[in-house]
Amino acid sequence: MPVNLSAPRAEQLLPIPGFRIGVAEAGVRKVGRKDLTVMLLEPGAVVGGVFTQNRFCAAPVQVCREHLAAGHGVRAIVINTGNANAGTGEDGLIRARQTCIALARRLEVSPEQVLPFSTGVIMEPLPVDRIQAGLPAALADAKEDNWLRAAEGIMTTDTVAKGASRQATIAGRSVTVTGISKGAGMIRPNMATMLGYLATDAAIAPALAQPLAHALAEGSFNRVTVDGDTSTNDSFLVIATGKAGNPPITSLESTEGRALFDAMLAVARQLAHAIVRDGEGATKFITVQVEGGRDAAECRQVAYAIAHSPLVKTAFYASDPNLGRILAAVGYAGIGDLDQTRIELHLDDVHVATGGGRHPAYREEDGQRVMKQSEITVRVGLGRGAATDTVWTCDFSHDYVSINADYRS
Amino acid sequence: MPVNLSAPRAEQLLPIPGFRIGVAEAGVRKVGRKDLTVMLLEPGAVVGGVFTQNRFCAAPVQVCREHLAAGHGVRAIVINTGNANAGTGEDGLIRARQTCIALARRLEVSPEQVLPFSTGVIMEPLPVDRIQAGLPAALADAKEDNWLRAAEGIMTTDTVAKGASRQATIAGRSVTVTGISKGAGMIRPNMATMLGYLATDAAIAPALAQPLAHALAEGSFNRVTVDGDTSTNDSFLVIATGKAGNPPITSLESTEGRALFDAMLAVARQLAHAIVRDGEGATKFITVQVEGGRDAAECRQVAYAIAHSPLVKTAFYASDPNLGRILAAVGYAGIGDLDQTRIELHLDDVHVATGGGRHPAYREEDGQRVMKQSEITVRVGLGRGAATDTVWTCDFSHDYVSINADYRS
Repeated sequence: MPVNLSAPRAEQLLPIPGFRIGVAEAGVRKVGRKDLTVMLLEPGAVVGGVFTQNRFCAAPVQVCREHLAAGHGVRAIVINTGNANAGTGEDGLIRARQTCIALARRLEVSPEQVLPFSTGVIMEPLPVDRIQAGLPAALADAKEDNWLRAAEGIMTTDTVAKGASRQATIAGRSVTVTGISKGAGMIRPNMATMLGYLATDAAIAPALAQPLAHALAEGSFNRVTVDGDTSTNDSFLVIATGKAGNPPITSLESTEGRALFDAMLAVARQLAHAIVRDGEGATKFITVQVEGGRDAAECRQVAYAIAHSPLVKTAFYASDPNLGRILAAVGYAGIGDLDQTRIELHLDDVHVATGGGRHPAYREEDGQRVMKQSEITVRVGLGRGAATDTVWTCDFSHDYVSINADYRS
Repeated sequence: MPVNLSAPRAEQLLPIPGFRIGVAEAGVRKVGRKDLTVMLLEPGAVVGGVFTQNRFCAAPVQVCREHLAAGHGVRAIVINTGNANAGTGEDGLIRARQTCIALARRLEVSPEQVLPFSTGVIMEPLPVDRIQAGLPAALADAKEDNWLRAAEGIMTTDTVAKGASRQATIAGRSVTVTGISKGAGMIRPNMATMLGYLATDAAIAPALAQPLAHALAEGSFNRVTVDGDTSTNDSFLVIATGKAGNPPITSLESTEGRALFDAMLAVARQLAHAIVRDGEGATKFITVQVEGGRDAAECRQVAYAIAHSPLVKTAFYASDPNLGRILAAVGYAGIGDLDQTRIELHLDDVHVATGGGRHPAYREEDGQRVMKQSEITVRVGLGRGAATDTVWTCDFSHDYVSINADYRS
């Protein structure tokens, strides 16, 4: 059961002018399942992407990077579930390119203008024939008002479709931001979601596409973790169709830039949180906030040590205030000169530890009360400086093991 | 159920002349449980220790380091289970010292000649009064032929007592090595076991104690992992009583030094493996061997990424040859310039992947056959150099979650 999360209603996901979506059942791995999604962009759309840091990155990720770098603009996106086309060597690259070529022919654009995405099982050959055969149905389905179907079309072990919209006024014009994401396991820093797509009809300068995508990822998808496994296929794409008619935004520091960034970050963060809320086996949503570090990087390092500790995560699952496990994770996070006598620990409003030991006023009933909640904030003070950082994660339950032990069956 | 591991019989754990052990039920946390162990050394024993790298190290670890550094020799060791005396601040240090003082008085030695060890729940005050009250019974129980009771006396979530012995001939004299260990969760590199004690009657030079302890830990306890959580209390102690009467060994490079090291490493490795075999919820024993690295450190880094991946570990649990998960872990291990087209993967004798993709001759039935075994070797080739390293771990099952969600109840 996802934590305080339900699928959006179709009408809550607002269409983005200049951006159409079509979904089909191509039988990539199983029949009777929406597993093929195409996204069609009118000429002039600006696109930026952020991809997995895994050195074993999947073939479609390599092809996406090449096609974005080629700079011919993006006219179409094709996404399949059921097969990740990762760990597939040279043959995988050929199959990813064949997918692009097939869609490019139907659209009469160049293959470099198509970005391919795959998610699913690793190290099995991508069934390009089935994807090609499914393209006509996906294209026939294409319309602007189709975001919910796309959110469903990219799901794998997700239990809930993930999408959000927001509107803002920029330079006197109303602009819309809509995004979808998928992912529930193999989720970790350095491009955290498996797949995320965020589109707006605002106009932005082409040079702003990559900085915008990076800044949005840093504030959202790169701060969530379910199990610490970085996928081979993680991808986050930002699309600006420019149809809102505002003068193109050239800087994130301008008033208009900030307004757009805020609206997009709100949607991106909601999508990233949705991935944690739907984390494999998750029963709780945990915010890990680390303060008092010398820099944000060391705060993040400590936050991830806590967020990845199986012992901490099982204690949250059990609602057991065995909070020494959090202190232990702080201690092994890798800060060599950490002074344990300066460590503070809060659980929501409860002051658990001070000066590295149990707070004199702390009572286990208070810790227990917070641990039973479905949303919990862990706040750690390092007492070394003024920097902070935040990571979002979930607990670790029997169902995580069941899901991952049974995933392929 | 531990993996191919059963408790040793009492007569398999050979006594070490000059080293007596006594065990008692002190009711530290629960009644009716062997939870207090003392070890008594005759004057002249040489002792070396290796301790947790966790910056949040427990009070007894801090006191052990102080007392070893003081250089007055070690005459006694006192170990309690049920309470880790970690995350207890200044008060924890006072209580650890009180324990040493109480035992020192009874033995008429100085408190600096006593080393304290604690394992159990974190962030609760150590019940020194109960430990003090239990000391007479533990001392009355002391005898050389008591290793199995000690192995039982230091258990926490262990399901099986862990101990091993070996004999060797050094300079014409028969020497004996006996060790015990405990630990089943919160196990990871940089001092991996919770507690390990390895004693020999061989004579060694005092200056060799620390190098010997480090070298033994590196080849055994520092190469095993259950869940990636580094404990606050991990300790490994090497004791040489000198009663065998050989001329004291001054170098590990001499014939005698090598003979002793080999015998001690064999016991240390057996004890370290026993911890993995009894890993919380373990159903399989996995050897992760990484070859072809530029140096051993990067091989170890890749081996630990594989050994810590919850997705890899649940796949082993399920006997599911979803081996792409191993490639993904290799990719995110943090080697920035890794060339995925050079990666090789074997599962025992089965060649799974070559050049970063599936091996043409690989058939899933072959992977399935190996995955069903209770002992599996994962062999990864990086294709970058000649270095290798090996890590031992276990799989990740429903029972791991159950044990850690229920540990304190």
